Amino acid sequence: MVSREYDVVIVGGGPAGLAAGLYTSRSRLKSLLIEKSATGGWIANAGMVENYPGFPKGITGLELADLMTEQAIKYGLEIFLAEVSGLELKGERKAVKTAEGDFTAKAVILAGGSDRIKLDVPGEKEFTGRGVAYCALCDAAFYRDVPVAVIGGGNTAINEALHLTKFASRVVLIHRRKELRATRIIQEKVFAEPKIEFIWDTVVEAVEGEDKVNRLKIRNVVSGEKSTLDISGIFVAVGSRPNTDYLKDILTLEAHGYIPTNEKMETGVPGVFAAGDIRANSIRQLIAAAGDGATAAVYAEKFIAE
Amino acid sequence: MVSREYDVVIVGGGPAGLAAGLYTSRSRLKSLLIEKSATGGWIANAGMVENYPGFPKGITGLELADLMTEQAIKYGLEIFLAEVSGLELKGERKAVKTAEGDFTAKAVILAGGSDRIKLDVPGEKEFTGRGVAYCALCDAAFYRDVPVAVIGGGNTAINEALHLTKFASRVVLIHRRKELRATRIIQEKVFAEPKIEFIWDTVVEAVEGEDKVNRLKIRNVVSGEKSTLDISGIFVAVGSRPNTDYLKDILTLEAHGYIPTNEKMETGVPGVFAAGDIRANSIRQLIAAAGDGATAAVYAEKFIAE
Repeated sequence: MVSREYDVVIVGGGPAGLAAGLYTSRSRLKSLLIEKSATGGWIANAGMVENYPGFPKGITGLELADLMTEQAIKYGLEIFLAEVSGLELKGERKAVKTAEGDFTAKAVILAGGSDRIKLDVPGEKEFTGRGVAYCALCDAAFYRDVPVAVIGGGNTAINEALHLTKFASRVVLIHRRKELRATRIIQEKVFAEPKIEFIWDTVVEAVEGEDKVNRLKIRNVVSGEKSTLDISGIFVAVGSRPNTDYLKDILTLEAHGYIPTNEKMETGVPGVFAAGDIRANSIRQLIAAAGDGATAAVYAEKFIAE
Repeated sequence: MVSREYDVVIVGGGPAGLAAGLYTSRSRLKSLLIEKSATGGWIANAGMVENYPGFPKGITGLELADLMTEQAIKYGLEIFLAEVSGLELKGERKAVKTAEGDFTAKAVILAGGSDRIKLDVPGEKEFTGRGVAYCALCDAAFYRDVPVAVIGGGNTAINEALHLTKFASRVVLIHRRKELRATRIIQEKVFAEPKIEFIWDTVVEAVEGEDKVNRLKIRNVVSGEKSTLDISGIFVAVGSRPNTDYLKDILTLEAHGYIPTNEKMETGVPGVFAAGDIRANSIRQLIAAAGDGATAAVYAEKFIAE
């Protein structure tokens, strides 16, 4: 069993949390990282990562997640699997609450990242795991030689679409606007890919099927025209939301729920830091999340020493 | 010959500048990085790097610098060797001045890092390159089987001392305080190293020798006692100073010359960003510098698009 008292507790095991844990552990601070599912965070879904400095040939997200985890553990970081449900800041020691009991710490680093936003349309929940998916890298292989749709227009949507071309017979990208939000280099790639088609100015109104998804009801938001698209899978990639529900009454959050910080990753509450995708104005990129984590760790160490 | 007009000009080719260039190039922004000597920045002197997430077995700073450079060039970053002497922000396009002429850009990312502080004592300048050094990794091999001193008490001083034990007969670490500023994991390492001795509460008053350095005049700052230390080499590692002299009348700098930024790496002057060791409150760590560079790049791209 892990201990209950730490110098630093880190919430979230993505790149920000792992970098924070690497740094606090190397500074000989007793450090616990609490993660709800598996370390690596969102990058475990990222496929090939080309923009993490140091890997010019690229590296898979899963591989990088493993390397980061191995490195943090090597220097003494402890990892505990549980979902964090609360944070108690009244006492001298901060308490991080989970279903498996509480852990206390002198400093807390919030690195819980963000989760995919759902479409919230009829059939989405019913068919999740039976045609509705949120992670192409995890699920693409179930859609060999059948047509699929990807919903969204950002970098994630496009990366998912590109990945799906290796499996599906046809990939239809449905976007509510008339152009992509993705960076140009990625746009060029996706427009050059013959398997990918585009349906612009269009939203999904319902997911339908019998045992599994068979079709989507879609609507053009400009003309109002409704139509049906025969499809076997739908990958939802319309954005993300920070994992800060349990922090609403504890920290000041900005409109979308992200945690405001300064350039030291301080949240405004002494001894509480935020790093990575969970903080406001994060660029939600791996390298920046890892940098945030290291910065939060160094300032947490200073906070504890003072 | 390189072009004269760019979307983004990046000043400085360390991890911050290379990460910024990787990101702006991948976004298909015409990008130039100007570096005064060689890319990699300070990490090229860093020996084995153990705390860059993704390399659990460690990687030499030189190797990592090469990988980062290769990766940025792969996506189109141009690199130009020159020293930047000025910045002109009056026109619509910003001008970056060098002895080889000016370059203009829509956005500028300042990533010039910081340089070692000198001792400023008699003999230091005279014997530089003949016993006085600022980079153990570069120069340690010249001091085989002779005694050397390292001046300083931070992480850099200790890393230099550890590296020197592989060459020198004896390494004397001279520190003006009575304890090290370094993180504990590194302190433990250095105290366990039999070749390293410590002289506490002591400063160097003069570097002396004939053709080359033979001895140091030192003074205990507590007792006032002066003494002489026979030594063949002295490695100065007493801190660093940002490369912002040419920015004094252009940007608001903090007391030590570092550039204040917010968490978006904005400097307060629209379109001018700072990233890495050059900015105020940077933790001066590789991973954080690279993260800063990516963040500056993304916000530079937004600035240009608006």
